[in-house]
Amino acid sequence: MTPVLKSVQTTLTEGVIELGVGHPTLDMLPLTFMQQAAAHRFAQGDPSFLQYGAEWGDGFLRTELAAFLTGQYAFPVDPEELFISGGVSQALDLICAMFTQPGDAIIVEDPTYFLALDIFRNHRLRIVAAPVDAHGLEVDALAALVAAHRPRLVYTIPTHQNPTGATLSAERRLQLVNLAQEHDFLVVADEVYHLLTYGDLPPPSLAAHVGTGQVISLGSFSKILAPGTRLGWISARADRLEVLARNGMVASGGGFSPLGSALIRSMIELGLLPRYIQGLRDTFRVRAAALTDALRALPVTFLPPQGGYFVWLTLPGGLDSAALLDGAVPQGVRFQPGNRFSPEHTQADKIRLCFAYYAEDDLREGVRRLGQALRAGV
Amino acid sequence: MTPVLKSVQTTLTEGVIELGVGHPTLDMLPLTFMQQAAAHRFAQGDPSFLQYGAEWGDGFLRTELAAFLTGQYAFPVDPEELFISGGVSQALDLICAMFTQPGDAIIVEDPTYFLALDIFRNHRLRIVAAPVDAHGLEVDALAALVAAHRPRLVYTIPTHQNPTGATLSAERRLQLVNLAQEHDFLVVADEVYHLLTYGDLPPPSLAAHVGTGQVISLGSFSKILAPGTRLGWISARADRLEVLARNGMVASGGGFSPLGSALIRSMIELGLLPRYIQGLRDTFRVRAAALTDALRALPVTFLPPQGGYFVWLTLPGGLDSAALLDGAVPQGVRFQPGNRFSPEHTQADKIRLCFAYYAEDDLREGVRRLGQALRAGV
Repeated sequence: MTPVLKSVQTTLTEGVIELGVGHPTLDMLPLTFMQQAAAHRFAQGDPSFLQYGAEWGDGFLRTELAAFLTGQYAFPVDPEELFISGGVSQALDLICAMFTQPGDAIIVEDPTYFLALDIFRNHRLRIVAAPVDAHGLEVDALAALVAAHRPRLVYTIPTHQNPTGATLSAERRLQLVNLAQEHDFLVVADEVYHLLTYGDLPPPSLAAHVGTGQVISLGSFSKILAPGTRLGWISARADRLEVLARNGMVASGGGFSPLGSALIRSMIELGLLPRYIQGLRDTFRVRAAALTDALRALPVTFLPPQGGYFVWLTLPGGLDSAALLDGAVPQGVRFQPGNRFSPEHTQADKIRLCFAYYAEDDLREGVRRLGQALRAGV
Repeated sequence: MTPVLKSVQTTLTEGVIELGVGHPTLDMLPLTFMQQAAAHRFAQGDPSFLQYGAEWGDGFLRTELAAFLTGQYAFPVDPEELFISGGVSQALDLICAMFTQPGDAIIVEDPTYFLALDIFRNHRLRIVAAPVDAHGLEVDALAALVAAHRPRLVYTIPTHQNPTGATLSAERRLQLVNLAQEHDFLVVADEVYHLLTYGDLPPPSLAAHVGTGQVISLGSFSKILAPGTRLGWISARADRLEVLARNGMVASGGGFSPLGSALIRSMIELGLLPRYIQGLRDTFRVRAAALTDALRALPVTFLPPQGGYFVWLTLPGGLDSAALLDGAVPQGVRFQPGNRFSPEHTQADKIRLCFAYYAEDDLREGVRRLGQALRAGV
């Protein structure tokens, strides 16, 4: 039975450095900024955000968000092509509900964000795995899979991918969109890490291609503000968003969290959101460097991340990551074994480390412990 | 295309009294109480409610809510049997996702809450209609339908039903639970109006029967606090709730709106929630009386509501409510025609009026205009 007083999703074990956790640190969360935003919003004296909200989300937030994204993405974002979601997980659920039938194929990256897979399984989709390399989804291999499986959706994390950290090249982005137009599937681009870049700038967000009607780009306030808001956004052509707004749950309950939306609206109006994101980038840049510097002492290979939360390691000599984890826990360190991210269990010699949760000293100590486990295991 | 600045779900027409709207009035929403709750919560200095939340919802809110419901329901409510939902619409979506297969039968009341039907259709359920009378769902007729259709779910609004206002009798409640045990279906009880009683007290909430494993009772902060929180609760046996927590979206994104949950927790801790509900009851009691008193001058029949939001009228001489609506709009009044609530379109001579949105003078004026339309139509 769940302990009743559990409030946060992940409970850490005292004394163990949990490099598998994919969350920001608790003390980095913007408590003071959100407090200012709440004070600002309540001071307006307008109770509209306590009422049933418009199905597409709060129009004021959509307008503010469009202006914010226009600045961040460096291309125009139209508020009419934004829908406020309950975060990426909810957006994926809604997209599956409205754009798929049970038995439809969905192509995902292998490896991919493992918790998305159960959402697709809940909708009885057939999951087909496509390979990725250092430049993201291998679009040539994808083309063959598309021809064979005729998918309704292709789910990709194009920028600072979870778990590999790879970013889809500009050339492949165009190939992907062309392929989607040719075969009429929807590209569902999970772009939650796009705004968290600390190194080389990625190509433009896939939201640049929503006008084709084949691309749905997902963003989240979980990664650039606070997971507890349970809010994000869906960028797509307006006719696609109209389909989502017709979902029974949305038509009945109205848009997602007008209360949280109103606070985020104030965050943007007060100029706090870009300031907060800049602080995240500064912190994560240092943490990513600390983790990768420490990892260079280990017999592992990896792609240095240019953003996001993660480093993806290849273990030496085909070492099995699940077995390594068994040996690592007594050393006081945990991580995500590779096969969790693989719908076809092809990633046994990989592990995912997160640099978002811990500060530099803990990251270095975690790597030291991982090194001990590796020496015992190799 | 949706006007981008639309923020609330329903936009009213100037000069028209919209007795069809099923919302509370904007100026009744608890802006000041929520402001106090936000100030209280932020003052604690704990950012946990900005982190990913526990799948079952915030443990502190579950504990406070259990104590609150124990007082309101007058029987013990266990926090281990509460799950924080994103409101009833989201709860219905989640229950369908985890407890049904496409093609399963669901039995609903005829008439019922019309917007629930599209949620069931999204999950490809077969909708079967069961009759209701002045004492709620006709359980004998239900028994025959259960034998014929072997439903997975029976969806009922047992107290102050939407749209009829009828309350399921104590005897029928027991029969319903026995039937569910005998035929192993789940009773999904939408009890959003249970705490909004202004007249005769209803029998105990169906949450009293969650221990059987056959009953899932749904509550909502939309009706007793503010729709914009998009939060509610699911009362069920813990093993049922564990199934809901395994949903892919919930496992990925964590519990629903930790931010909103933290504010509601403070509302309860500060004693503001019961005060607010008492104010709602006092207001709605007067409004319900004003509406029903005015209606006695019209050639319609109805069951005087003992709570909830609605009065359900039978029109004279089998008059068609859709045609009447066409005649009513030029008179400056609107309502919900009966067939919107009927999966089998058996309610053509009925209309639903809501007394929650307007104050007494507007309600009386609305009835006067309705009378004009009736005289023109009869």
